[in-house]
Amino acid sequence: MPREITAFSNPLVKQVRGLRDKKNRRSEGLFVAEGLRILTEALEAGFLPRILFFAKGTGHQLLSRLIEETEAGGGDVVETNADILHKLSGKDNPQTVLGVYEAFDTSLQRIDRSRAPLWIVAHSLRDPGNLGTILRTGDAVGAGGLILVDDCVDPFSVEAVRASMGALFTQSIATARWEDFLAWLRSGEGELIGTSLKGQQDYQQPAYGRPAFILIGNESQGLPEACEAECDVLVRIPMLGKADSLNAAVAAALMAYEVRNQWRRASAAS
Amino acid sequence: MPREITAFSNPLVKQVRGLRDKKNRRSEGLFVAEGLRILTEALEAGFLPRILFFAKGTGHQLLSRLIEETEAGGGDVVETNADILHKLSGKDNPQTVLGVYEAFDTSLQRIDRSRAPLWIVAHSLRDPGNLGTILRTGDAVGAGGLILVDDCVDPFSVEAVRASMGALFTQSIATARWEDFLAWLRSGEGELIGTSLKGQQDYQQPAYGRPAFILIGNESQGLPEACEAECDVLVRIPMLGKADSLNAAVAAALMAYEVRNQWRRASAAS
Repeated sequence: MPREITAFSNPLVKQVRGLRDKKNRRSEGLFVAEGLRILTEALEAGFLPRILFFAKGTGHQLLSRLIEETEAGGGDVVETNADILHKLSGKDNPQTVLGVYEAFDTSLQRIDRSRAPLWIVAHSLRDPGNLGTILRTGDAVGAGGLILVDDCVDPFSVEAVRASMGALFTQSIATARWEDFLAWLRSGEGELIGTSLKGQQDYQQPAYGRPAFILIGNESQGLPEACEAECDVLVRIPMLGKADSLNAAVAAALMAYEVRNQWRRASAAS
Repeated sequence: MPREITAFSNPLVKQVRGLRDKKNRRSEGLFVAEGLRILTEALEAGFLPRILFFAKGTGHQLLSRLIEETEAGGGDVVETNADILHKLSGKDNPQTVLGVYEAFDTSLQRIDRSRAPLWIVAHSLRDPGNLGTILRTGDAVGAGGLILVDDCVDPFSVEAVRASMGALFTQSIATARWEDFLAWLRSGEGELIGTSLKGQQDYQQPAYGRPAFILIGNESQGLPEACEAECDVLVRIPMLGKADSLNAAVAAALMAYEVRNQWRRASAAS
């Protein structure tokens, strides 16, 4: 049976609110996801919340199922109100359902590259919205996951989870230093594809091999030269305007869809 | 000569800080843009700030030029410090330069469709980051501008201007009700291209005509049926994962690049 919490001073409310800080997420190994849609996505991917909060009076078949499965899985189910949910999520119009999940193991060794022909790699990505959007795009193109290299933002931040629209639970996520990523990459098959202003080829020109690893650079600096130098293919996305770069999540999507579209055409032709 | 302001209580500081509210932007007809790069972009597009703030000790050739041109244009130049800039921008690491600009006239009648073969139209777009990112992509694909239909977020919000990376100054922007947009659209040439789950054709299938108007829907609802019904072409972007939609700015970029890539191939072949 759900228990009820309506006091701001409740220690659980304080603890969960604290998960908006990266430090607390790290020390407790927990993170927050919001919304019936994302939590149901998580459930279908096999992830149960350790704690499930929901607003009193929320009636929905999906919520009933979430409550049932969370309780069956030994999780804590808490009935609360919109004010507390606002406090927990930091949003003005909070979702009526919020889950606290155990953070995943993000070691590179857990990535099985044979599981998918396409992977996205981000170098020093700083914006959580971009990170979440890239996960969402990864899901859409059937990527295996996202490898976060060097100084990237935390994939378990509220904003990243929100922007991923649930793809955080369906995409594999790894974090690694560049040297370690490179050693791992070269220990198996894979083509490293970088986008850069210095790319000699248009992004529609090369025939991309599998598995393809699409490498996306930092929002303001792009890719470091040392990373560009390691790319098997370095391409540029044409730009006709005044600006010299695209949003990182947009560049990732254009590259990922280009690779997928090529493969679609090839399989349609054969 | 620049004057110096270092007091939080200064009325100008209060006024400019107030521009973070849409109501104040509307009533004063002003908005804020930050950063040397974006302000230089604005200058090159012919826009001078009415007020230019810069942090004492910022030495840069581009800043000297901005100061000179702002003063020559009759604008107010204010030397200040990082604390005041933080207060004005609301960012933890504020840019060292901030400009206050007059809002543009966004009436539909000011849009000259013959100026560009490609335009982006957004219906009830709610996220300022998405709006800015779409402007930035519009610049990259040589779009004429962005038409904001019905209940869209304010293009002059700090977040939208920031995400546009200066494209706010190079793209035309109009706001309109759907009925008025439709009447305007049908008063001249143009193909309205919608993306939808209900699209019968893959987005790479149709041959897109000029001028192309790419219609993007709301982040959570997509396009209303009435809008879909008016589209000349309704296409879907293929998705292989669990999710049934892409981020709105990603969808806009995929469509815009697809149209541009088709035209590139056609002109290379002819």
